[in-house]
Amino acid sequence: MSGSLVIAGLGPGAETMVTAQVQAALDAATDIIGYIPYVARVPDRAGLTKHASDNRVEIDRSNHALQLAAEGKRVVVVSSGDPGVFAMASAVFEALEAGPPQWRDLDIRVLPGITAMLAAAAALGAPLGHDFCAINLSDNLKPWALIEKRSGLAIEADFAIALYNPRSKSRPEGVERLLDLLHALCEPTRLISFARAVSTPDQVLNTVALKDATPEMADMRTVVLIGSSATRSIARPKGASFIYTPRSVSP
Amino acid sequence: MSGSLVIAGLGPGAETMVTAQVQAALDAATDIIGYIPYVARVPDRAGLTKHASDNRVEIDRSNHALQLAAEGKRVVVVSSGDPGVFAMASAVFEALEAGPPQWRDLDIRVLPGITAMLAAAAALGAPLGHDFCAINLSDNLKPWALIEKRSGLAIEADFAIALYNPRSKSRPEGVERLLDLLHALCEPTRLISFARAVSTPDQVLNTVALKDATPEMADMRTVVLIGSSATRSIARPKGASFIYTPRSVSP
Repeated sequence: MSGSLVIAGLGPGAETMVTAQVQAALDAATDIIGYIPYVARVPDRAGLTKHASDNRVEIDRSNHALQLAAEGKRVVVVSSGDPGVFAMASAVFEALEAGPPQWRDLDIRVLPGITAMLAAAAALGAPLGHDFCAINLSDNLKPWALIEKRSGLAIEADFAIALYNPRSKSRPEGVERLLDLLHALCEPTRLISFARAVSTPDQVLNTVALKDATPEMADMRTVVLIGSSATRSIARPKGASFIYTPRSVSP
Repeated sequence: MSGSLVIAGLGPGAETMVTAQVQAALDAATDIIGYIPYVARVPDRAGLTKHASDNRVEIDRSNHALQLAAEGKRVVVVSSGDPGVFAMASAVFEALEAGPPQWRDLDIRVLPGITAMLAAAAALGAPLGHDFCAINLSDNLKPWALIEKRSGLAIEADFAIALYNPRSKSRPEGVERLLDLLHALCEPTRLISFARAVSTPDQVLNTVALKDATPEMADMRTVVLIGSSATRSIARPKGASFIYTPRSVSP
């Protein structure tokens, strides 16, 4: 089999945040596969076939990509952000493990990208500048009780926390339930940032004290960054405050 | 003040993992500031002054960068990986907060980069494909008891865990102590990956069961990825196994 499969991260939206190695993979591809809005980011050209599919069909899409690669195509599966963070890479490996043994001979590579929480953190300052965790609120892929347990332990550990998919179609109430938990466990002045469509023309950054946070501040394009107990704000005479978490914790 | 300060992430090492926006900032800079090996990655050119400093002087370096920007220079502080993940961004904001008020008028931006754990994860497969956390073992910036508490809670939460700076100069015994904790809390077959100098010619990837892990598998250029209880390996007839964490957890 001479085909190949690349699982590539397109970053959060800005074309200037795409890495050169991802751009080279897109330029060399015969087939691009992914969720409709991500495939739309790749320009049409002669010799390129684009296969756009709806959300929530990740395993079908992965099987399709592996099959095309097995047929000799140069396939690129595109994800927003980083493919290894709540995106297509795990789905492809799930399909690979369950699929025909000969697929394991394929040339398969994952190319990282700028994931949403790191783009959001950069736009805000450095809220993830100390230990942190990332939790996916979406997908019907895990029980809510586990999300609640993990979030509670993350707060006990005093991590900064990035929440992906806070208001997914499948679990729109996630962010509301999570805020209830935060109200019970954190001080009301804890900083929480809602970063929407980071690096795109639609970007909106909104940082509030936990007591002022509402579920409507998040939508499907938002990543939520919850500060640790040490996360601080630096006011500026012009422009938004910087949000950052100091590197040090005193003994 | 017409100067500017960009805090830019150079990614883990490969030039093809630098984003276009970071490259543009480097090309426009009058002054580059950072730790010696990172500054060395930026080619010399007319009109560019490079200020390389040793490790562990992050606040001095930040003050220097802010002062140069206040004098009207176009300053870029370079970090390896992502500047917001255990790198220079938080240090700059600490210096900004403590410094003269007029610094807050400066044009300051953070440009994200590919952080080591995501480059390592991509090279291995998708070990961070479910909820995960990142913990810095280094720096004398926090007490060991806090690292131990956080790591224990992270294991209880069943996060995959990325460990940065597992064998820093200031705390070379960190990884050994962490392995002791893992032995006490995790099953002996838990997968643990040691990813050294990812994306450079010196890259070495080594995944073992926890029972076979030794402190010598990590050095100062290594990021350690500890799987969750669900992290799996896919054997291949040729080449290294893929390591991945499935997206789903059953109720």
